[in-house]
Amino acid sequence: MTLTDNQARRQRHCRVLEQDLSRGASALADQALVEVARFARECPVPDTAALAAELTLLADELAGTRPGMVVIANGLAAWRQTLPALSSLPLEQARQRAGEQAEAVRQQRVAARRAVVANTLASLQPGTTLMTHSHSGAVEALFAACAETGLAVSAILTESRPGYEGHALAARLSALSIPVQLITDAQMALFVGQADRVVLGADTVLADGSVINKAGSALLALAAREAGVPVWVLADRFKTATQEAVDGCHEEKAADELGAPSLPGVRVRNCYFEVVPAALIHTRVDEHGAHWRFARKAKG
Amino acid sequence: MTLTDNQARRQRHCRVLEQDLSRGASALADQALVEVARFARECPVPDTAALAAELTLLADELAGTRPGMVVIANGLAAWRQTLPALSSLPLEQARQRAGEQAEAVRQQRVAARRAVVANTLASLQPGTTLMTHSHSGAVEALFAACAETGLAVSAILTESRPGYEGHALAARLSALSIPVQLITDAQMALFVGQADRVVLGADTVLADGSVINKAGSALLALAAREAGVPVWVLADRFKTATQEAVDGCHEEKAADELGAPSLPGVRVRNCYFEVVPAALIHTRVDEHGAHWRFARKAKG
Repeated sequence: MTLTDNQARRQRHCRVLEQDLSRGASALADQALVEVARFARECPVPDTAALAAELTLLADELAGTRPGMVVIANGLAAWRQTLPALSSLPLEQARQRAGEQAEAVRQQRVAARRAVVANTLASLQPGTTLMTHSHSGAVEALFAACAETGLAVSAILTESRPGYEGHALAARLSALSIPVQLITDAQMALFVGQADRVVLGADTVLADGSVINKAGSALLALAAREAGVPVWVLADRFKTATQEAVDGCHEEKAADELGAPSLPGVRVRNCYFEVVPAALIHTRVDEHGAHWRFARKAKG
Repeated sequence: MTLTDNQARRQRHCRVLEQDLSRGASALADQALVEVARFARECPVPDTAALAAELTLLADELAGTRPGMVVIANGLAAWRQTLPALSSLPLEQARQRAGEQAEAVRQQRVAARRAVVANTLASLQPGTTLMTHSHSGAVEALFAACAETGLAVSAILTESRPGYEGHALAARLSALSIPVQLITDAQMALFVGQADRVVLGADTVLADGSVINKAGSALLALAAREAGVPVWVLADRFKTATQEAVDGCHEEKAADELGAPSLPGVRVRNCYFEVVPAALIHTRVDEHGAHWRFARKAKG
């Protein structure tokens, strides 16, 4: 076997992440750990040192596939810390240990997400109305936990143009028998005053406490502050990035998703993500608890 | 002829306004004046006193057809002030004078709207980027005036769900060769920082200076304040109401306009209008000039 063969194998693992545009950051971070475990079992190498070198290369390459999703790189970084310990093992044991360590990190991530939901659930009173934008896995899990524990809550959901993620979340909450009001994104300011709390997921939590999330999240957070409704962000520490906030358009996608007419001189813009400034976030919940940040005008 | 005949005639005039859900408040206010002039010419009455009584009844009934559009009632109120002067005239002269007075009020309204546009145009520098939400007649007229006078401006337009009024305005600006960026409503906060000014029309200006306008207008005004971009409201004095602001949902329309799936426990909300608080409005322009109100964080 040649190095070129392994390059091609690594590229196939990377393509799994590059081509999956439907799943969220957490799901793809888990998938990356599945990919490294599989590569550890199967990649043709002569000895443990060569295995460790190949695994390091793959981890770097996978981390670069979706630069906006810091959780992928963070999961892989946690796993990479376990690679030096492989050096004392025979090749076949090293292959198995690498896979076990990837699964261990994945389990840590699952536990962290469960803890985020549990920590948020502990703060909720019966009868609470929660408002959200887009379709966060953590927020969906929170609603599921409310239903499982019999905590009566209701929801205000935005449709979340252009992907209509709010329709998918509404269907999920309908199945959970949670009452929903579903609105256009334009009606956020009209309805946020009916909510007791805004709950958002996060694609990334930046070093200054600001959050990258679906476009419209900053708008909802502004309306919430004006109405005195606290904004809670649900994000485990695997989502924390070392970089500071960068304003502007994150991940601009195809213009035709908006269904607008094509007109001379009209540029259709379709930025998927934006930064929610830290000053608009009342509480961040991670796996260690709820961290109060900021409470300007907040009513609860 | 019996009173019942005139009742039926008045109802037919009212239906013209009740059934026109596509045109804006200003256009319907003009239509109301056309209707009273037509009724003045044609309604069967024995003398001038009976004519004045019938016209007063019709003005009241027309004013009640679209209670959210204060400009209809205000135009009719201006016309009603001319009715007492009819009493000294023979019937046929009174019919003609009533129609002339309705046309005079309509011309006052046209002149007021032109003055609003001229007063706004006078404040614009070449190279200005204007951002708006929905499709205001006054704002469209402002863009047309820019194009006519050769003042180079560009536009950021929201699509304005669920009616997509932003698509229609984009088509109009494309025809005027004004460069446009067209965005989802959810991207307002992302793009407002690129604007030099937000310009909004108004369905009604309330007594405290707040404005009733298409849902999403308050959201844009909040994002504008956060970004230091001043919000200008273009509204002549025919749009001023004596009532104070009332929060909440104004004119909720059919839920199926949102195209959301029908799901048990999911209530789709479709409020057309909302209140933009006076504190978020930097300048109101009426036919008498630009009235500075509030400049928190405004950059120009």
